[in-house]
Amino acid sequence: MPIRAVVWGENVHDRENAIVKGLYPDGMHQCIADSLNASSGIEATTATLEQPEHGLPQARLDETDVLLWWGHKVHGDVDDAIVERVAARVWQGMGICILHSGHFSKIFKRLMGTPCSLTWREAGETERVWTVNPTHPIARGIAPWFDIEQSEMYGEPFAIPEPLETVFISWFEGGEVFRSGVTYKRGAGRIFYFAPGHEVYPIYHQESVQQVLRNAVTWAAADAPAWADIEDAPNRPVDKAPQPISEKGPRLHAAGEAGYR
Amino acid sequence: MPIRAVVWGENVHDRENAIVKGLYPDGMHQCIADSLNASSGIEATTATLEQPEHGLPQARLDETDVLLWWGHKVHGDVDDAIVERVAARVWQGMGICILHSGHFSKIFKRLMGTPCSLTWREAGETERVWTVNPTHPIARGIAPWFDIEQSEMYGEPFAIPEPLETVFISWFEGGEVFRSGVTYKRGAGRIFYFAPGHEVYPIYHQESVQQVLRNAVTWAAADAPAWADIEDAPNRPVDKAPQPISEKGPRLHAAGEAGYR
Amino acid sequence: MPIRAVVWGENVHDRENAIVKGLYPDGMHQCIADSLNASSGIEATTATLEQPEHGLPQARLDETDVLLWWGHKVHGDVDDAIVERVAARVWQGMGICILHSGHFSKIFKRLMGTPCSLTWREAGETERVWTVNPTHPIARGIAPWFDIEQSEMYGEPFAIPEPLETVFISWFEGGEVFRSGVTYKRGAGRIFYFAPGHEVYPIYHQESVQQVLRNAVTWAAADAPAWADIEDAPNRPVDKAPQPISEKGPRLHAAGEAGYR
Amino acid sequence: MPIRAVVWGENVHDRENAIVKGLYPDGMHQCIADSLNASSGIEATTATLEQPEHGLPQARLDETDVLLWWGHKVHGDVDDAIVERVAARVWQGMGICILHSGHFSKIFKRLMGTPCSLTWREAGETERVWTVNPTHPIARGIAPWFDIEQSEMYGEPFAIPEPLETVFISWFEGGEVFRSGVTYKRGAGRIFYFAPGHEVYPIYHQESVQQVLRNAVTWAAADAPAWADIEDAPNRPVDKAPQPISEKGPRLHAAGEAGYR
Repeated sequence: MPIRAVVWGENVHDRENAIVKGLYPDGMHQCIADSLNASSGIEATTATLEQPEHGLPQARLDETDVLLWWGHKVHGDVDDAIVERVAARVWQGMGICILHSGHFSKIFKRLMGTPCSLTWREAGETERVWTVNPTHPIARGIAPWFDIEQSEMYGEPFAIPEPLETVFISWFEGGEVFRSGVTYKRGAGRIFYFAPGHEVYPIYHQESVQQVLRNAVTWAAADAPAWADIEDAPNRPVDKAPQPISEKGPRLHAAGEAGYR
Repeated sequence: MPIRAVVWGENVHDRENAIVKGLYPDGMHQCIADSLNASSGIEATTATLEQPEHGLPQARLDETDVLLWWGHKVHGDVDDAIVERVAARVWQGMGICILHSGHFSKIFKRLMGTPCSLTWREAGETERVWTVNPTHPIARGIAPWFDIEQSEMYGEPFAIPEPLETVFISWFEGGEVFRSGVTYKRGAGRIFYFAPGHEVYPIYHQESVQQVLRNAVTWAAADAPAWADIEDAPNRPVDKAPQPISEKGPRLHAAGEAGYR
Repeated sequence: MPIRAVVWGENVHDRENAIVKGLYPDGMHQCIADSLNASSGIEATTATLEQPEHGLPQARLDETDVLLWWGHKVHGDVDDAIVERVAARVWQGMGICILHSGHFSKIFKRLMGTPCSLTWREAGETERVWTVNPTHPIARGIAPWFDIEQSEMYGEPFAIPEPLETVFISWFEGGEVFRSGVTYKRGAGRIFYFAPGHEVYPIYHQESVQQVLRNAVTWAAADAPAWADIEDAPNRPVDKAPQPISEKGPRLHAAGEAGYR
Repeated sequence: MPIRAVVWGENVHDRENAIVKGLYPDGMHQCIADSLNASSGIEATTATLEQPEHGLPQARLDETDVLLWWGHKVHGDVDDAIVERVAARVWQGMGICILHSGHFSKIFKRLMGTPCSLTWREAGETERVWTVNPTHPIARGIAPWFDIEQSEMYGEPFAIPEPLETVFISWFEGGEVFRSGVTYKRGAGRIFYFAPGHEVYPIYHQESVQQVLRNAVTWAAADAPAWADIEDAPNRPVDKAPQPISEKGPRLHAAGEAGYR
């Protein structure tokens, strides 16, 4: 069965900005979905902010293996309830790929627990992406380095937790460096942040970028059934303890009572 | 200068439950603060939920090196704005020690980005705390293992991110295990979660527990000035780039404009 | 193509000790290989210490996806050159699963860079293996916990580097805990240490242990071509630099000279 | 009591190469030691390859808090027994800072368990060191970035285990990036690798480099008594088990017998 990917796009600059519209007539999300669908192992569709429930009703998320997230201008317009819903699905095992300016999206900050801030410059300079973990599944088929001719500079310090693994580090013409490809796990869900993707340059048309995203989707797809009850805190009473014990001393909770939360 | 610690207590069971009141006539927070003050290097005070701003106005947090957090019954009553304020101070460098049932506090879940769920049983059984990282600063002076005669069982799976370092793992009489002492960094802030501390047992009167908390406060105290602007995403324009570059190609932002967030 | 696994057995107690011989008439390595071959995706063979080159000539290692290693009594008899050969293949991408007393094998200590010491007791006590990372590929199909009725106690502190991920933690009847299933990466190679497996008990006949090993082999098998030149330190001369530069200042090495090592 | 640091220098190019001799008339090790001694909290001495036992007899190591290691041309001349001795002291708690070409030293490879390979170019190009973890103790007082006007390029992929924390990442004029400041723990010992330090450039005369090394020594110094028996694997017999148990079933070892290794 192919991996079911959903590319979520903010779809604001895609419609309002002439440059972006010219580069991505059907929206960036559609360009990304098309490039994922070039792999026979992936079946990608799209969702956008302006749709009901931002295109992410619970039933759809439940059938999504990997979500890709591109947002920039209106992070604040994303409904907090949808953010929590997405986070809950990640914990259960849905993979998520956060793209470019998504570093400041509610969902990425929610999953990281840090500000996810960085420095930036929009000067059309060259970004050179270095593969520092060449046998990681996300780097499959990727050269030791590849250039993005025009890119927005994202620079360190990048206020993220220490990654599980660092896959790519970028060099910028203007003199900066950036951890541009990093992985995490939160609950059962695999997370990949990939920095390139500024909307006024044709970055998602570039083959090596497309390959990274196909690899990332393949890597992030769960290989286990959903951890459906990960948010529960089940009581295991005395008579179900793996080792025979008897109750001693005082207690707070009546038998069968749920814990506080 | 001594480390300025604030012990935050929910202070509900401490006043409402006869057993807890008997064990901690001045509240658990006061007992913990007293035990910290036994160290000449720490100056501990307390704050509680029912105080204005939960006893944690910005000015006080700004002068706090390490916050200890004990909550259980009314996690939901903690004001979201205060949670954000505490998280922001952690990112800037304030240490935080999350105690026992605080695994389900808003602030711990906020910093972890995971559900922080676990299994539990309240049977007054023995918990044996094993030191798995014996030369970690938090384990200073702690024996290879120590017993808590009566404890609430907290069991795996504990839905937390992979720790930076695991310091303690607990064995339970009823047959479970638990990663009972784990560390993280989020921004500049050091985080320690310590599991023992159920309110109906005299756990915070136990010397080895007190020693762990003194060590944890000493470890978590920042040794760097606050990272005050960690939430900013500063633009570094072309004329300030470390390497001389000239602007190329299209752009989205007018010069001097702030980035989106 | 099935994963090519080789189960390496020291094969000393298997032949010399009546109890072990009774439990594993064809040797422990054969029992493990048989249980791996129960999976259609794995093709397992065996190698033993007493064979020429310990059964691990370079050509065979080159065609091995995952090596499993069981040794105990005569770690010191393993040829250092073979250890280096195995390490080199791990760096290139061969997975390796270190079993039980293999914690003190030359190859595990070589890959960890630590003493890998622990405490132990041989009393036939119960070991309860807890799954702390239930959606990790190595835990697929494994219950929240399973018991090994008779086991050798291995206890903390276990002198290993902080794991990439902790999958299992064991509880012992005699009161200890142990990180019994941990993962690492060294170069391109994935490493899994699994503690249960003392030779005088029928542990490798137990279904849940067999399932863990099948999962581990599947997880450890490389999904990338070998990183064949990982030990090289290639010079990238000025005329091959990604960014045009000219040579400046003094230098130590003549053009084309290899680096020191 | 000041931290007792020993700067180990290979001392070959320092005597044989006119450029190096000109830059470091007393040897690089002496220059580094002098810069450490500028801190009142550090007391640094030197040791070199040509001395008996490479200047590192056991008694001296036992009184060393932090060892700094600079080698390049004759890594192979370092006695394996001394390497093991140093590794053992690191496990017990001695800090170690590996400098520049020491990435290929026996001791660094021993502690990492990986090839520690990289790409390189000797062209006198600019290296820009970025602080990616600005509140790490090793970055204290270090600017967001600092330039080394002439440096040897060290480039990714750097075949090291995923670091405990990444403190610095370097940008190179010729287009590469490199994780130039990374930390590890092995046993009780803290390890810091710092890349800048090619011998034909005056890098150790640069204030920011000296500050990094002073910080690193301060960070790496143990704050716990030595873990003297870390290589032991003590038996904890039935009558010393924390939980009362009785022996069951067969066993391999006679009572009181030492384990195999």
